[in-house]
Amino acid sequence: MPVGTRASVKAISQGELEALGAEIILANTYHLYLRPGHELIRDLGGLHRFASWPHPILTDSGGFQVFSLSALNKIEEQGVRFRSHLDGSQHMLTPELAIEVQLALGADIIMAFDDCTPYPATVEQARASMERTHRWAERSATSWRASGGSETGSALFGIVQGGMYPELRRESAQFLAAMTLSGYAIGGVSVGEPRELSLAAVEAALDVLPKDKPRYLMGVGTPDELVQYVALGVDMMDCVLPTRNARNGLLFTSQGPISIKNARFAGDSGPVDPACGCTVCARYSRAYLRHLYQAREILAAQLQTHHNLHQYLDTMRQLRHAIELGRTLPEPGGSSPAR
Amino acid sequence: MPVGTRASVKAISQGELEALGAEIILANTYHLYLRPGHELIRDLGGLHRFASWPHPILTDSGGFQVFSLSALNKIEEQGVRFRSHLDGSQHMLTPELAIEVQLALGADIIMAFDDCTPYPATVEQARASMERTHRWAERSATSWRASGGSETGSALFGIVQGGMYPELRRESAQFLAAMTLSGYAIGGVSVGEPRELSLAAVEAALDVLPKDKPRYLMGVGTPDELVQYVALGVDMMDCVLPTRNARNGLLFTSQGPISIKNARFAGDSGPVDPACGCTVCARYSRAYLRHLYQAREILAAQLQTHHNLHQYLDTMRQLRHAIELGRTLPEPGGSSPAR
Repeated sequence: MPVGTRASVKAISQGELEALGAEIILANTYHLYLRPGHELIRDLGGLHRFASWPHPILTDSGGFQVFSLSALNKIEEQGVRFRSHLDGSQHMLTPELAIEVQLALGADIIMAFDDCTPYPATVEQARASMERTHRWAERSATSWRASGGSETGSALFGIVQGGMYPELRRESAQFLAAMTLSGYAIGGVSVGEPRELSLAAVEAALDVLPKDKPRYLMGVGTPDELVQYVALGVDMMDCVLPTRNARNGLLFTSQGPISIKNARFAGDSGPVDPACGCTVCARYSRAYLRHLYQAREILAAQLQTHHNLHQYLDTMRQLRHAIELGRTLPEPGGSSPAR
Repeated sequence: MPVGTRASVKAISQGELEALGAEIILANTYHLYLRPGHELIRDLGGLHRFASWPHPILTDSGGFQVFSLSALNKIEEQGVRFRSHLDGSQHMLTPELAIEVQLALGADIIMAFDDCTPYPATVEQARASMERTHRWAERSATSWRASGGSETGSALFGIVQGGMYPELRRESAQFLAAMTLSGYAIGGVSVGEPRELSLAAVEAALDVLPKDKPRYLMGVGTPDELVQYVALGVDMMDCVLPTRNARNGLLFTSQGPISIKNARFAGDSGPVDPACGCTVCARYSRAYLRHLYQAREILAAQLQTHHNLHQYLDTMRQLRHAIELGRTLPEPGGSSPAR
């Protein structure tokens, strides 16, 4: 899922996203609550109409952002008290408000409000954070059902926490599975931990989460992580890497990532990736993209975002195709069959 | 002509420019000479291939930029000595080098090197600057012819100077007309002077310049100036206004310009201009564009650039159509027939 935090996937238009075959985008509750405000978006017909994206939208609950972006945040049982990173105004985001905001936005998939466990955390800290996440998941579900539940046109996903402790991940997945929600997300991954720990935590959760419901791994990942986690049974992922790296001149190719600012590309008339079928590789050279990047032209961000998103979406298309054909997916450190 | 100073019309792709019906873009000798270098672009097959723009390109001679952008510039009879605004390196741009750079870039229309007269200037200063421009035009033409002239695939335009003195403008136009160049430009306009002065200066030059050759007014202008100058007989104009204003949230509409950041657009579900046929007006609301602008999303620059360029190109299309039909063009302060 391309990430459109503030109702825009950075540096790419909705028409281009459609042409790239993007089927769903992610938007952010915290950001849109603060600006332009969920009530304004609701009054304008909801996020689909506001952003002119007549396709699925998933909103995250804001739990991650109240910590990573806002100043003076404080967790209470009721929710999280924080100051806006925009104007310093005071707010409190609760499970009930997170659901209210997401329903006002009118997203197709909405997330329960969670307490994103930082890394590192002791097992006691991770347990406390996980149990709070469970209580907040129940309040989120109660609030969602009171507003009409699936009749609102939305599906509610719960979020598994548990830090880097597989036994907690398993317990969290069991707790949420028992709530019979529309789908399940695995949060608190890619927060600075070594790859083996996230892998083990995700595997523990996937062991327990029902296989007939969507399983969404939040905030992941690199191109090889996409392959790795799909092989483990993950259905959905979102990550800012393709778009953020594009703006920083880091381009994904079939031969690995390249940094377009590298001087060796100055006179390189070849495309970013000869094996890529995107319109940027069809039309522009590495030399031109490097020039645009060096000259800080906005077009660098535009073209490079297009290319990187094509790479990511194409990887996912190939994985889907391999699964449909029953082929084996590559997996670092061994080969496991497609689920 | 949309302005693509550094081989990119800011915030819009070449494919979009083609879809908008842009037939020619302008690129800048000074900027491309400094970065990435005209020799690199020549070695990569020229500017058309480098920028993937297989349509006409006009390059200006750099005379304006060595003054407006570089530090420590100094006019000598030989040329202009300056320090790069990028790295402080010392250079001297001469008529001969300006032609060499433009031929290396491979532009379709290239400009003689000129001394852009500032405003205000005494009649003596304006005359000295004009006469230098004439000597430099002769050196530019000699250099161009020695390199093959029109056999290089390029057309050389001379630039009329003369400040805000109609008699000097007339004299400059006569001098250049006698050189029988491929076309003629009027420079040194829109440099801070009141509109009446530029109008009078341009009219004086147009009186003299041959009507069977392209007449290009440099660096102009607002939408009403487009109409005004076409009515006077101008064939070509370039201006950063549509693209620069777009990035600053100032949008041109059939009802005049609007500032999209204005709070009254926060909940406005209508298009930027209901009378506009562009894809941005077809798909997005003022409320969404205002949100993107307030959130400093790159997409704001992209969509707004698209809209403003559509407005400008559409104005020129309508003017061409009116001329073909022999209709009267509107002109502030009176009505004059299409030429």
